[in-house]
Amino acid sequence: MQRRVELVHHTNHTVAMYAARTCTDTEHKTKDPDDQKLLLKCIEKGHESVLEHIVYTFKIEGISRALLQELARHRIASLSVMSTRWALKKTMKQDPKDILVSTGVDSIDRFNRQTLHEIQEDLQGYPNDKLKYVLPEAIKTKCVLTINLRSFRNMVKLRMGNNALREFRGLVRDMVNRLPGNHRYLLIDVYKGEV
Amino acid sequence: MQRRVELVHHTNHTVAMYAARTCTDTEHKTKDPDDQKLLLKCIEKGHESVLEHIVYTFKIEGISRALLQELARHRIASLSVMSTRWALKKTMKQDPKDILVSTGVDSIDRFNRQTLHEIQEDLQGYPNDKLKYVLPEAIKTKCVLTINLRSFRNMVKLRMGNNALREFRGLVRDMVNRLPGNHRYLLIDVYKGEV
Amino acid sequence: MQRRVELVHHTNHTVAMYAARTCTDTEHKTKDPDDQKLLLKCIEKGHESVLEHIVYTFKIEGISRALLQELARHRIASLSVMSTRWALKKTMKQDPKDILVSTGVDSIDRFNRQTLHEIQEDLQGYPNDKLKYVLPEAIKTKCVLTINLRSFRNMVKLRMGNNALREFRGLVRDMVNRLPGNHRYLLIDVYKGEV
Amino acid sequence: MQRRVELVHHTNHTVAMYAARTCTDTEHKTKDPDDQKLLLKCIEKGHESVLEHIVYTFKIEGISRALLQELARHRIASLSVMSTRWALKKTMKQDPKDILVSTGVDSIDRFNRQTLHEIQEDLQGYPNDKLKYVLPEAIKTKCVLTINLRSFRNMVKLRMGNNALREFRGLVRDMVNRLPGNHRYLLIDVYKGEV
Repeated sequence: MQRRVELVHHTNHTVAMYAARTCTDTEHKTKDPDDQKLLLKCIEKGHESVLEHIVYTFKIEGISRALLQELARHRIASLSVMSTRWALKKTMKQDPKDILVSTGVDSIDRFNRQTLHEIQEDLQGYPNDKLKYVLPEAIKTKCVLTINLRSFRNMVKLRMGNNALREFRGLVRDMVNRLPGNHRYLLIDVYKGEV
Repeated sequence: MQRRVELVHHTNHTVAMYAARTCTDTEHKTKDPDDQKLLLKCIEKGHESVLEHIVYTFKIEGISRALLQELARHRIASLSVMSTRWALKKTMKQDPKDILVSTGVDSIDRFNRQTLHEIQEDLQGYPNDKLKYVLPEAIKTKCVLTINLRSFRNMVKLRMGNNALREFRGLVRDMVNRLPGNHRYLLIDVYKGEV
Repeated sequence: MQRRVELVHHTNHTVAMYAARTCTDTEHKTKDPDDQKLLLKCIEKGHESVLEHIVYTFKIEGISRALLQELARHRIASLSVMSTRWALKKTMKQDPKDILVSTGVDSIDRFNRQTLHEIQEDLQGYPNDKLKYVLPEAIKTKCVLTINLRSFRNMVKLRMGNNALREFRGLVRDMVNRLPGNHRYLLIDVYKGEV
Repeated sequence: MQRRVELVHHTNHTVAMYAARTCTDTEHKTKDPDDQKLLLKCIEKGHESVLEHIVYTFKIEGISRALLQELARHRIASLSVMSTRWALKKTMKQDPKDILVSTGVDSIDRFNRQTLHEIQEDLQGYPNDKLKYVLPEAIKTKCVLTINLRSFRNMVKLRMGNNALREFRGLVRDMVNRLPGNHRYLLIDVYKGEV
């Protein structure tokens, strides 16, 4: 399984437009959902809190626990992660190459497959809570992530940077690609790439 | 205008069920959306984070700024409020009785109407930022509130208590009444009243 | 009573320096507490999370409930506020001029004093939960606020802006003035004024 | 290096007592710092926000990245962690037994030491961002954690439970043991053990 990102839920962006107009008591004004000026102006003025009304829920599969370490540090978000403590036995029965993220470096990937193979041969009997300590960080996990647009913008900005982890950059790109087409303009100042 | 509460957006509760199953790698299991056991068990076990994936956006009109003081203290939520600084002039042109929340105590309500009347007579010329300092806390406001179910459960628990502000109890009741029928069971342990 | 701001607790800024060095495993490096470069570089690089280890607790007295409405919107902070619901009776016994924030506009201040005087004459008998609805927003309150430096920097940036409420600008200035002298440089990019 | 926990900073608990009294305008009342009743009553009444004024900063060394995965999920806290991306080279030069947390299961610990040994032999040349993907989760890390008492109480409650990860239970016990003696009573309802 390659990384797979799915947008399972999102709030219509017009909800944020409506919220912005509530602040100024101008809900009656033009309600053209394609009018990009209103929310771009909010961003420009530092009035980003209205973007919090736009909430996304992603299903993310096939990322490494190395990446999870970084993903979980985004605190303004909700994360439900496949538990090694509950679900490790099933993982252990699969082919090593199917449960490891590839780093793009052959000798590292080979090393991990070999380690996994040995774990499966020699250590299967131990409880999950012990066994998890031998897992290489390339091991795949999956999660459901709910995040609002303001916090997502911060994630995009930080994790598309030149120093960001390559796998995280790929994940962010996938997430952005799953956004509704008419939400993309709201990332224009933070996303490096076509929006 | 009486208090008016509208649910302008909500996440399907099956998203939280899916998140709960992701934790245990059991997404394949029964997907009956009417099966209440899964999420009630999460609540019972203290695994409330899965409820965070269920997000509500409410439009709330006709509450007092006295209530707003308390509402804004719920920090795990997003709030866009009609600004006195931007929108006061329009408010000032309305009939006092239409822009004041009634407390149910005649002499207090009369006092407020009289104060508002005098403000409108004597103080209209001043900038909003000065004028707002004379507003009685009964003055009506409106807002858009986005809150996840976990945080909302906390609000319900605290603000339906015997010591809670009467107006807040009424607001919570209105909010609960706007929830989708098949979400109500998720409040069973915190809501005082029919769910 | 004028506004009175007191810093009742703060974390030594060297704690953030130590945290920054933990990230790079360089705790052994120079420990000169006056070396400003380390944390300024963190700010410049967008690595502001290390600033969260520096936490301030302020006692704030003599601000208006109008200002409290804005102060409470800073969600990454902890606020304990004098409750009108518990403490209003005592407030009601004081001289109106002592329990109202001055706006600097005579006719508005006079109007508020007159309103307060009438409330004290005519409405004293009612329960606090009703009486609070007649209070003008200029009424004074007090609170204890705990906030970390990252969140405080955001407050300074937003509330020292040209469009910010004048009373909030004054409060921020007072808070900044109470900071330990060797913390001030950490506001250099967000504070308008001498640091 | 065994796990080592140090309390590098804490707020005096009297600050929370003062905050509690501010709510009821009773700061003048008895100021005996040993009077446990006030804050215990706040806990009992669900008025836990006053506990947020008590903030701890811990230096934590010698925990596994398996534990870090769980620790980072406590979102109301500030965490600065030794970065594998910055600091891995130095780690790689140490004796495997010194950079691995022991699980108490010999064959698992031996397996990890062997894996580490092979990594050091065969994979040293690769960049940290690739190399980190082969690290077993038993690898040691260190961090600085700032957390307020309310959030810490939640951590204690969840992570001292029967189902909690053994290493996390040990960490919580160490943290509790480092608290000032006169703070311990504030955990009485959530900590399993002597306080």
